[in-house]
Amino acid sequence: MILKRWLVGLPLKTKEAAHERLSKRLALAVFSSDALSSVAYATEEILLVLTLAGTAMVGYSIPLSLSIIGLLIILTMSYRQIIFEYPEGGGAYIVGKSNLGEWSGLVAAAALMIDYVLTVAVSVAAGIAALTSAVPDLLPHREGLCVAAILLVTVVNLRGVRESGQFFAVPTYIFIGTLAAMLGVGAIQIVLGHASRVEPLPSIAAAEPLTLFLLLRAFSSGCTALTGVEVISNGVSAFKKPEPQNAALTMIGMAMILGTLFIGISSMAYYFGIVPKGDETVVSQIARATFGTGPLYYLVQASTMVILILAANSSFNGFPRLASILARDSYMPHQMSMMGDRLVFSNGVIILGVFSCLLIVLFKGDTHALIPLYAVGVFLSFTISQAGMVKRWLVKKGPHWEKKLLVNGIGAVTTAIATVIIASTKFTHGAWIVIVLIPLLITFFRAIHSHYKAVSEQVALSRGHRPPMPRRNIVVLPIGGVNRAVIRAVDYARSRSGDIRAVLVDVDPEETARVEIQWAQWGCGVPLTVLPSPYRSVLSSLLDYLEQVLQKDQECWVTVVIPEILPARWWQNILHNQRAFMLKGALLFKDRVILTDVPYHLTR
Amino acid sequence: MILKRWLVGLPLKTKEAAHERLSKRLALAVFSSDALSSVAYATEEILLVLTLAGTAMVGYSIPLSLSIIGLLIILTMSYRQIIFEYPEGGGAYIVGKSNLGEWSGLVAAAALMIDYVLTVAVSVAAGIAALTSAVPDLLPHREGLCVAAILLVTVVNLRGVRESGQFFAVPTYIFIGTLAAMLGVGAIQIVLGHASRVEPLPSIAAAEPLTLFLLLRAFSSGCTALTGVEVISNGVSAFKKPEPQNAALTMIGMAMILGTLFIGISSMAYYFGIVPKGDETVVSQIARATFGTGPLYYLVQASTMVILILAANSSFNGFPRLASILARDSYMPHQMSMMGDRLVFSNGVIILGVFSCLLIVLFKGDTHALIPLYAVGVFLSFTISQAGMVKRWLVKKGPHWEKKLLVNGIGAVTTAIATVIIASTKFTHGAWIVIVLIPLLITFFRAIHSHYKAVSEQVALSRGHRPPMPRRNIVVLPIGGVNRAVIRAVDYARSRSGDIRAVLVDVDPEETARVEIQWAQWGCGVPLTVLPSPYRSVLSSLLDYLEQVLQKDQECWVTVVIPEILPARWWQNILHNQRAFMLKGALLFKDRVILTDVPYHLTR
Repeated sequence: MILKRWLVGLPLKTKEAAHERLSKRLALAVFSSDALSSVAYATEEILLVLTLAGTAMVGYSIPLSLSIIGLLIILTMSYRQIIFEYPEGGGAYIVGKSNLGEWSGLVAAAALMIDYVLTVAVSVAAGIAALTSAVPDLLPHREGLCVAAILLVTVVNLRGVRESGQFFAVPTYIFIGTLAAMLGVGAIQIVLGHASRVEPLPSIAAAEPLTLFLLLRAFSSGCTALTGVEVISNGVSAFKKPEPQNAALTMIGMAMILGTLFIGISSMAYYFGIVPKGDETVVSQIARATFGTGPLYYLVQASTMVILILAANSSFNGFPRLASILARDSYMPHQMSMMGDRLVFSNGVIILGVFSCLLIVLFKGDTHALIPLYAVGVFLSFTISQAGMVKRWLVKKGPHWEKKLLVNGIGAVTTAIATVIIASTKFTHGAWIVIVLIPLLITFFRAIHSHYKAVSEQVALSRGHRPPMPRRNIVVLPIGGVNRAVIRAVDYARSRSGDIRAVLVDVDPEETARVEIQWAQWGCGVPLTVLPSPYRSVLSSLLDYLEQVLQKDQECWVTVVIPEILPARWWQNILHNQRAFMLKGALLFKDRVILTDVPYHLTR
Repeated sequence: MILKRWLVGLPLKTKEAAHERLSKRLALAVFSSDALSSVAYATEEILLVLTLAGTAMVGYSIPLSLSIIGLLIILTMSYRQIIFEYPEGGGAYIVGKSNLGEWSGLVAAAALMIDYVLTVAVSVAAGIAALTSAVPDLLPHREGLCVAAILLVTVVNLRGVRESGQFFAVPTYIFIGTLAAMLGVGAIQIVLGHASRVEPLPSIAAAEPLTLFLLLRAFSSGCTALTGVEVISNGVSAFKKPEPQNAALTMIGMAMILGTLFIGISSMAYYFGIVPKGDETVVSQIARATFGTGPLYYLVQASTMVILILAANSSFNGFPRLASILARDSYMPHQMSMMGDRLVFSNGVIILGVFSCLLIVLFKGDTHALIPLYAVGVFLSFTISQAGMVKRWLVKKGPHWEKKLLVNGIGAVTTAIATVIIASTKFTHGAWIVIVLIPLLITFFRAIHSHYKAVSEQVALSRGHRPPMPRRNIVVLPIGGVNRAVIRAVDYARSRSGDIRAVLVDVDPEETARVEIQWAQWGCGVPLTVLPSPYRSVLSSLLDYLEQVLQKDQECWVTVVIPEILPARWWQNILHNQRAFMLKGALLFKDRVILTDVPYHLTR
């Protein structure tokens, strides 16, 4: 508990929730780190595919990057409309469910949950890659560093969103600043003709011909740049008032920064003739080429690492929020919607931390191995959101609905095409895992949902139901001897009404006689029944007796009061209460029998 | 449960216990298999050590075997006296404790427990070695076969001792018969000069010189032949009347058979020039030399395997009996002394099965690897028994006490010398494990003992203690809504007396208002208190309320009745009762607060 307090902080009151709103500046830091940080790996992933067709083909990265920026513009316009339509927060689940029905919502929810986990894994892996590019000695510890980073973010998020925002603002702006500086310096060098390749362009032979399929695969890899664009639309309610306006402005600002950084990095990589290397990221190579290996280079690497690790934070906002919405709709266990002490859905935070660590370990912290799984789910949820909005405009209409329909329609069609491209070109490289997981998750959601539904039907009070009539309650107190724990149980049993019966199973006649004498003195007048035990089994004799009591009065409750010794140390439990334990197991499914433990606490 | 019935059989009544007595013939089968079966490996273990000094030295096996038979005679005479002095069963624990005090008893108990486990492991490993000698194809499956054999013996023993006796008698007598026949045929061949070596004696070069230490190590290995000699003295009470006479006669018969078989096998091995081979036992080689690889050979191997596996049975009689005696003296958890349905101390049987399987797995089912651990404990317990008897005669005297003292005195001195020889010559080969384990086990016994002692002091009723005065009982019923489960809990709470208070934590004012209206209809007149919840934590609001109730009346009991939904399937529990679970955890250590679950069983 002390550890928890130290890590997580003191509890916050519910009314403090309203104060946890974010200014645009803070919100950009919290919600944009996911999207912005993708520039750290997106260009590299495009180049990695293109170099399969030989280094001569890296020039295609520029038109590919531009097409992705086109997609970014479409997405931003589409999501702007979602922000205004869903100021409470319009995730793909809500937009899909409210416009297209349950199934679309669940597909979106499953896709999103998987991508939240992947965002954490990919971002952290890329962040540690930025670190190991600068400090190659750390490369062998990649996996451990990734896990440590995830643990750090998990703890920060268990502390609550406000502190996270402050915590994240500075590094985000440093990242934007240093990257902008790097691109500026690089551009000047190119214009002045000082641009010097660090090393001559290595001439990699073509492993595959440059097919349309390969180009589309490179495009798919680049689409990871767009992951996280939607994050702001999920968190509109966290903005200061007026929420939608602030959120929309923040999103547009973010898109502009993202687009600029992305095309800038792709261009620099092209002009400097940089291709991916196993042990150094493309951004690291650009930074070395522009700044040299000096303090500014290290600042780029450090801020890249920090923003990538902080990008994982978007998921730690989004995942628990989504899980709690699903829990409220009974698609996830209800405890996912319980807020913790710090106004955070702690269960969701912890689950996200665990699963993303698992991914890191499975994929050994390798960004390139994780990338093919990424983006399928994101684009699937984009498509559902946009399609949901199209349906919405068709049904709801309202002012300027045709224009709005057009915007979301273009969004729906382009994201749908992108989804199909990503799923098909990356299918064999890992996307199949996500495509298999989504229906499994949906099955899981629906199983939980139908269970909760069945339960609420079973416990619902019908009109025909009448409040029950009062009934008798017979208290049975099984004893094995007379000691303080037993006397305490008698004391308790007697404090409530009437019919109390102590029972003793006769295993050893001498012992029984001794107990009877003691009972006369200590039993507080409670009658003692001695039960015969032909089979030495205390348990079966007691069960027979209870069965008789239940038979005699078909209406009564039977309370079995069990004196239980609670040892001072947990492991000592193995030395006690074996009979009580077995009795509980045997009585659990007996109707009308209620068990009550009366603990007697030992002090040593 | 059905599986248990099928494997273990129907329960037996206590009075059937007396009928479970063994005739001498059955007792020999049940109690002697351990001792007799040792001849299957003892000679081989002697030869294994001697061949370290080269094959020329195998001739020393004859005098070594004779010295071990001398030890057998001394032991038999000594134990005969124990049988008459301790007709209730005189294990080393009892003899040591009653004559030399607690510590000696505990040392003996620890040594015996370890050796019971080792007996199972060594016997089963040697039994499977007999099988793989005849069917070499099974050699790779040695470990699995050993574990399967232990499981078989465990199940047989959970069924009870009588059936085991019948089950074991036939193979034991077949073993004695076929081995006698083998030795007879071999002797005739030798006398007639037909004795032909299967293969010429392989000339193994000496790895070590033949030192006195090596001879003593060979002697130590051969002492494993004597393990199990004491088993009968532990089980005197299982004999038909007059128990001591029958037990003593059975033991003398057993010793004669054992001595004959042992010296016979050692002689055969010598005359046929047999040395240990990795994949075939010495007994198997002798059987092939005398009978050829025909039906009689396979009968020898089969009966050897069976008797060795059955030898494990001695431990399954002895271990649970010892554990139950220790439990009665509070040196083991009390449940070790609970008899199961079939008049067997089931817990002990199961624990022995588990630990011996563990040993088999750790030592890969290899007899030779296990042997160095064996015998240390046995001879230590022999020594304690004999020393205990020496003390007894000195104190008690009685008719012919000087003669009896002499017999046990010789026993004590020789077994003490043997213990020292075994422990020192095998120390580095594994005996150290046992020497380390014994004090650990004793610490364990004493920790349990002091715990039970502390408990009984804490719960003991003193003279100054008075039966308690009646006190109030306030029933608190926390609810989150109104449904059948809650109404059932109200019904239960109302069936006992007076002061019942339903409490609702106000998390959401709308929901609270709705519940209040429903309560008016369904609440059976129980007053409903609404608790404020500044921290959204239902738990802390409830705890605060309970604290107030306890403060107000410093004497009263507080019963917290919790409506609990019991799902139809166990895994559904994760979806329910999270709050109830946390509440229970929080209240477990609150004095005067008693928890009562009222389960509502779901059917689907």
